[in-house]
Amino acid sequence: MRRRLLLSGGAGAAVGAVAATVASGRSPDPAAPPSTVDDTGTGVVPFHGPRQAGVSTEPQAHAAFVAFTLHSGTDRAALGRMMRLLSDDASRLTRGVAPLGDTEPELAVLPARLTVTFGFGPGLYAAAGLPSPVAELPPFPIDRLEEAWSGGDLILQICADDPLTVTHAQRMLVKDTRPFAAVRWVQRGFRRSRGAQAPTHTQRNVMGQLDGTANPRDAALETAVWAGDATTLVVRRIRADLERWDLLSAADKEQAVGRRLGSGAPLTGTRELDEPDFAAVNAAGLRVMPDFAHVTRARVTDDRLRILRRPYNYDHSVDAAGRPDTGLVFASYQSDVERQFVPIQRRLAEMDLLNEWVTPVGSAVFAVPPGCPEGGWIGSALLS
Amino acid sequence: MRRRLLLSGGAGAAVGAVAATVASGRSPDPAAPPSTVDDTGTGVVPFHGPRQAGVSTEPQAHAAFVAFTLHSGTDRAALGRMMRLLSDDASRLTRGVAPLGDTEPELAVLPARLTVTFGFGPGLYAAAGLPSPVAELPPFPIDRLEEAWSGGDLILQICADDPLTVTHAQRMLVKDTRPFAAVRWVQRGFRRSRGAQAPTHTQRNVMGQLDGTANPRDAALETAVWAGDATTLVVRRIRADLERWDLLSAADKEQAVGRRLGSGAPLTGTRELDEPDFAAVNAAGLRVMPDFAHVTRARVTDDRLRILRRPYNYDHSVDAAGRPDTGLVFASYQSDVERQFVPIQRRLAEMDLLNEWVTPVGSAVFAVPPGCPEGGWIGSALLS
Ligand code: HEM
Ligand code: HEM
Repeated sequence: MRRRLLLSGGAGAAVGAVAATVASGRSPDPAAPPSTVDDTGTGVVPFHGPRQAGVSTEPQAHAAFVAFTLHSGTDRAALGRMMRLLSDDASRLTRGVAPLGDTEPELAVLPARLTVTFGFGPGLYAAAGLPSPVAELPPFPIDRLEEAWSGGDLILQICADDPLTVTHAQRMLVKDTRPFAAVRWVQRGFRRSRGAQAPTHTQRNVMGQLDGTANPRDAALETAVWAGDATTLVVRRIRADLERWDLLSAADKEQAVGRRLGSGAPLTGTRELDEPDFAAVNAAGLRVMPDFAHVTRARVTDDRLRILRRPYNYDHSVDAAGRPDTGLVFASYQSDVERQFVPIQRRLAEMDLLNEWVTPVGSAVFAVPPGCPEGGWIGSALLS
Repeated sequence: MRRRLLLSGGAGAAVGAVAATVASGRSPDPAAPPSTVDDTGTGVVPFHGPRQAGVSTEPQAHAAFVAFTLHSGTDRAALGRMMRLLSDDASRLTRGVAPLGDTEPELAVLPARLTVTFGFGPGLYAAAGLPSPVAELPPFPIDRLEEAWSGGDLILQICADDPLTVTHAQRMLVKDTRPFAAVRWVQRGFRRSRGAQAPTHTQRNVMGQLDGTANPRDAALETAVWAGDATTLVVRRIRADLERWDLLSAADKEQAVGRRLGSGAPLTGTRELDEPDFAAVNAAGLRVMPDFAHVTRARVTDDRLRILRRPYNYDHSVDAAGRPDTGLVFASYQSDVERQFVPIQRRLAEMDLLNEWVTPVGSAVFAVPPGCPEGGWIGSALLS
């Protein structure tokens, strides 16, 4: 199925005009060129291949992260049956075809770039009698983890550009997982709708920041994410205290991150993709990129040590006082959790001004095995 | 800002092919022609006008229904201040302009056809010392209402084609409501993404049914919905027991509704828009449109007695056994609740096979006052 994305100059100008009305005194959002899209419903991301889809895939608008706890009887043979079944379901759903047991097949016809990415937690390896390539993260002093959002033996990352497609795929996959595992938690998340902005444009998160700027691309992504055809997934639910974040001035928000709100440029630059200059000092002799800024603390230059962030926003509920339970379902892919994710998270936990407003409330780690060819199934090298 | 919708013949054919693989033996989903969309982010629905937007507006992909309980001190003067403030916020947000108190103005730039529709509950009229044009619904035997989803003195129906736009608008509006009212409940809902299907196409709900077929249009809509420039809104949260619904055969599901799953045609017809023939009997002498079918029970022919349904799907969570909490945020507009909605709901409560699988768990009723001109505010005729 073909896919077209065209930047539409005329409409871009109109958006520029709207953006310019943001009374911030900064350059307008660099940022909202719309794209012409004609495959929002019909777009297909191939399920089969040496690597699983949903990792390097341009993030879809909607996601459900569904984690499971295996039933006590689920051994290696049962895991093999489960993964055969779920791989078959996913291979159909991602093509817009109803899985064999689909009780609402009419809901399967719009794949909307659906991907289903499978991750195996430490508990799955234990159940299979195999050594686990991943371990739960060490505790960090900033953590306020809740059982309700943590751990898991198996995860399904279900992403699509249509929310009903995600809901239907989730339901069919959960049903077929039922003989083998119980649902542990589900985290729904969203990004901008497909076509709302050009995919080349970095999106803003629920805190208003351009989020994704320094993500590895191309060769750097290849190095950072893939160990052969496998990778790993960390999912952290991070609550944002937007009520207190709202009390900050724009300048203070920029100090916390080390980048400008409007343009996303580092505090030492003017354009989003300018390299931050961590050595630059101002008239008072203070570093322009503060030592405590999120970007300063998170920065890694060796591609082998970087991570690919693929976060979604969540907006769960509002209490009577009007305080939202909102934040990021922070998901990152890296070839090795211990070598790449943990040192970054440790540095951020030690010092990062952003910690004043964000709190990890969930955490889980999964190995993401290679993809499979047509007729094959995810995990076959391990479980058969 | 311009708006274009083009049916794309080539892609339509491709979708036909996908849909035809649905192994149902029925005609393929009539139904999924994609549309080319280039204003998903930038589309503007005018806020100002004699009538409020968000009623006759082609439903956007995402909605938040936010209901409030007024603080005890909120009298008519305070209500006037509140509605001036909220109308001003809404008039800006819907144009893609940050409201005056916006603390994340960068998130306001993509209106995505945002509408904010204000409804006043009986409690608001009481607080203003005015007689209420609406009353809570009478109890129905099928109701299993939960406080958590019922009632409200004020409602904001916030709809847009982008979920982050809804989240941001909701947060800014909730903040400005805080001095006057507490959040009572929030219900988020979704439909197909913009551009996933042509807007002329009836969408499927989370139960897999084409939902919206017999909605009034044009002159009938005018008669059914508008009393001058005012209308009323009923919001019912209706949980669907999809686990038990899944146990039915397609034929049984069709009997429950009175329409075919694939085409949406009445059981006496072949095409979605065919008029049902409620008198037709089969060889066994039984009515083809069963007496107990949802459509048979809900059918009203006099336009003055019809309702405009504007429902959204919800998918709230999943329990450990994999059972989803899902269903419809059923929203309907009608010029008079007692005359139009109540008799239909009463007939459905008395007899409607669909009741076996759906349960109302929330209920609320609001008067929807006229719109306002530029510089005016919603409710001014009542509250000033
Ligand atoms: C709610 C939580 C978080 C928010 C709001 C947030 C926000 C941001 C923002 C705005 C940037 C700058 C733009 C960009 O490059 O994307 C950034 C960069 C980055 N963040 Fe986060 N972040 C969060 C959590 C985390 C976590 C948990 C990690 C990993 C442990 C992380 C790792 C990084 C990295 C590696 C960069 C790029 C730094 C560079 O090389 O310039 N972030 N984040
Ligand atoms: C979960 C709950 C419900 C579901 C799944 C549902 C589903 C449907 C479906 C599939 C149709 C046929 C296609 C169409 O015309 O849209 C329909 C028609 C209709 N429904 Fe519902 N419905 C629900 C609740 C309600 C409620 C609460 C009311 C009003 C009290 C209502 C009033 C109607 C009306 C008036 C029609 C059109 C009947 C006609 O003239 O043909 N429905 N509904």
